[in-house]
Amino acid sequence: MTTSSSLDDTGAASSFDALWNALLPVGRDPSTGGYHRLAYSDADLECRDWFTSAATDRGLDVETDRNGNLWAWWTKPSGTRTDRDALIVGSHLDSVHDGGAFDGPLGVVSALAAVDVLRARGRTPQRPVAVAAFADEEGARFGVACAGSRLLTGTLDADRARSLRDASGTTLAHAMTAAGYDPDRLGRDDERLARIGAMVELHIEQGRGLVDLDAPVGLASGIWPHGRHRFTYSGQANHAGTTPMTDRHDPVQAFAQTATAVDAIARSRQARATFGRVEVHPNSTNAVPSRVSAWLDARARNDATLTAVVDAARDAAAGHARDTGTTVDVTTESTSPVVSFDPRLRARLTDALGAATDGRTPVIATAAGHDAGILATAGVPTAMLFVRNPTGVSHAPAEHAARDDCLAGVAAFARAIEHLACAPG
Amino acid sequence: MTTSSSLDDTGAASSFDALWNALLPVGRDPSTGGYHRLAYSDADLECRDWFTSAATDRGLDVETDRNGNLWAWWTKPSGTRTDRDALIVGSHLDSVHDGGAFDGPLGVVSALAAVDVLRARGRTPQRPVAVAAFADEEGARFGVACAGSRLLTGTLDADRARSLRDASGTTLAHAMTAAGYDPDRLGRDDERLARIGAMVELHIEQGRGLVDLDAPVGLASGIWPHGRHRFTYSGQANHAGTTPMTDRHDPVQAFAQTATAVDAIARSRQARATFGRVEVHPNSTNAVPSRVSAWLDARARNDATLTAVVDAARDAAAGHARDTGTTVDVTTESTSPVVSFDPRLRARLTDALGAATDGRTPVIATAAGHDAGILATAGVPTAMLFVRNPTGVSHAPAEHAARDDCLAGVAAFARAIEHLACAPG
Repeated sequence: MTTSSSLDDTGAASSFDALWNALLPVGRDPSTGGYHRLAYSDADLECRDWFTSAATDRGLDVETDRNGNLWAWWTKPSGTRTDRDALIVGSHLDSVHDGGAFDGPLGVVSALAAVDVLRARGRTPQRPVAVAAFADEEGARFGVACAGSRLLTGTLDADRARSLRDASGTTLAHAMTAAGYDPDRLGRDDERLARIGAMVELHIEQGRGLVDLDAPVGLASGIWPHGRHRFTYSGQANHAGTTPMTDRHDPVQAFAQTATAVDAIARSRQARATFGRVEVHPNSTNAVPSRVSAWLDARARNDATLTAVVDAARDAAAGHARDTGTTVDVTTESTSPVVSFDPRLRARLTDALGAATDGRTPVIATAAGHDAGILATAGVPTAMLFVRNPTGVSHAPAEHAARDDCLAGVAAFARAIEHLACAPG
Repeated sequence: MTTSSSLDDTGAASSFDALWNALLPVGRDPSTGGYHRLAYSDADLECRDWFTSAATDRGLDVETDRNGNLWAWWTKPSGTRTDRDALIVGSHLDSVHDGGAFDGPLGVVSALAAVDVLRARGRTPQRPVAVAAFADEEGARFGVACAGSRLLTGTLDADRARSLRDASGTTLAHAMTAAGYDPDRLGRDDERLARIGAMVELHIEQGRGLVDLDAPVGLASGIWPHGRHRFTYSGQANHAGTTPMTDRHDPVQAFAQTATAVDAIARSRQARATFGRVEVHPNSTNAVPSRVSAWLDARARNDATLTAVVDAARDAAAGHARDTGTTVDVTTESTSPVVSFDPRLRARLTDALGAATDGRTPVIATAAGHDAGILATAGVPTAMLFVRNPTGVSHAPAEHAARDDCLAGVAAFARAIEHLACAPG
């Protein structure tokens, strides 16, 4: 047992390291150490090529679905209408602007390494198993998070998806075409969805829950509901020198007052509210701007609190627009209801992980959206594994997980797949 | 007299219209009706080509100085060291982002039309006269206003100018080279400066002073002092969903609080303060930003008030940075001291304009910077003519002057040039 375990561990480590190190340079900004792997950018396409090579090297059968999601089948479904019990494991490869190395890739690398571990142990799946890399999870380029899984499950309309534009005006349809994909095929994929019997996503934790619990790996209870709302303030462009303060219709002032108010609203309700993206037009030092667009990312522990936060933010914006002689228009760009992961699946994984996690498998909630949440909402029994993040920082270059914790994640992922898909050894 | 005046007026109108209409389509954004003629952009180069053609068609001798400023000589200086009495008339051709049609071009077009009027009257200059179009007056692309006249007079260092960058990272040196100019020649031009005996700039008013005074044309008393200061807030990038409000170091919050405070500071001192340009990094909806840069444009009626406003803004920024767990760094990018135009030159112009302005030539101050102010600060006797602006709007597509008022401006400009440069008729 000791010898076998050591061999497994050594294999897991070398497998993980080789996969991780091959992916590490792709899309890295040497000046910040952060990553720019925006959906269908050159760096994202290089990540996707890496996935195809890594999976093909392992003899996995790689396919791209209609919505740009990648699937590497260890054992494929038979194709019969009754073969509806595939286990999907993985995460995504794309990043936010100047993001960390772990958010997404850790789950994909760990899933491939877990397959290596199980094969080294001589395990064979008794149900179809695929490692998946979902497309455009972050939504950092086209504005809609989890676009690949939302398209798959039909919660993002194909026409709307095709017409989404990035900051330079390029549509998702154009970006996909340029990357060699066919955007006309986008849309709800009932046949593929029906074959999925369960999904387990592994992800770096984006907070310090596991640090506080002193555990390298945990399970997710659910995901906070969340929404993205674009606040567009319209004022009147004018000369910054000659326009008296009393004659101004300055949308920057309306936004600034709203941002301050929304921060207090979120604090008072133990929710989260962020204006992380702001665009000022025409953005000249010597002109009062004509327009400010600011995107509110709002999250709360339950739907009622989230609704209260967003309603209060709208009211604050309307009031501050009135006070500054401007107008505001609020458009909801995406919403994600509260997600509760499947309790039976979680119970099975708690059993399975007992040994790998020294008998301690904490269960924590998260305020971050994930493809697993989209599939859960679509009715797929779904679970998530989190790997400890010492600082809690994510979506930033400082995002980090210790190698030992990553290897604990691989071990947990392997146990989970073994338990859910392989015959008892 | 009536016949002669009518003929002059008709000639002025057709000359003005032909010049104005040829320039009008250049750099126009059909969606807003605004203009994008940023320094050394394609549209700016097209404006400069228009200037060269219009001047050459009139037999004026066109040259580009070391700093990219254009000079069209009606009568050239002799080149002797004693020939130091040139009269310079004109303005600039570049615009802010989405600016109006009048700010700059009205002065250049009116100067050329005024030369036509004087020639039609058979007038000949008794001193050197040039129509000038100064380069990069707005500073909308590279951040320093009046760059062409500041370089000429030595108040902008050539090395600093060459390394100024636009939003896409292109340096002024690179942009000039790409446009066919030699940035190595940039710098203080004592020889040229010494030849200038006086300057008169004509400009659309950027406020409603002349509306209130019911006058189509006025003279400037002076220019408020003004400065541009970059406020750079540094925080910590993090996940917008998973980072508790209490753990954040959000530079957007620090900026928002500062913007609100600075607005109140400017109001309390009857000054002007604007954050018209804001850049958020990395500008992702689902990330707490790591950095916000915001440019403060501050102006006041005297230097003491301006210093008080900027000092209070710095203090407010430092306090709000501290309150939000961020830091702020304030860099002054340009300052312009208070300008008082030459009182003797203004008195001569008041006499000269008597008839053209029906005996009423109001004298008003402005808070807008101009190349005339830079030359005045360098010791050149300088005056400015303003043309009425019905709404006062400037630096925006709605900027406007009535054609009759523009023609009154041409008539006044012609009288001014006649009085200052031509033998009595």
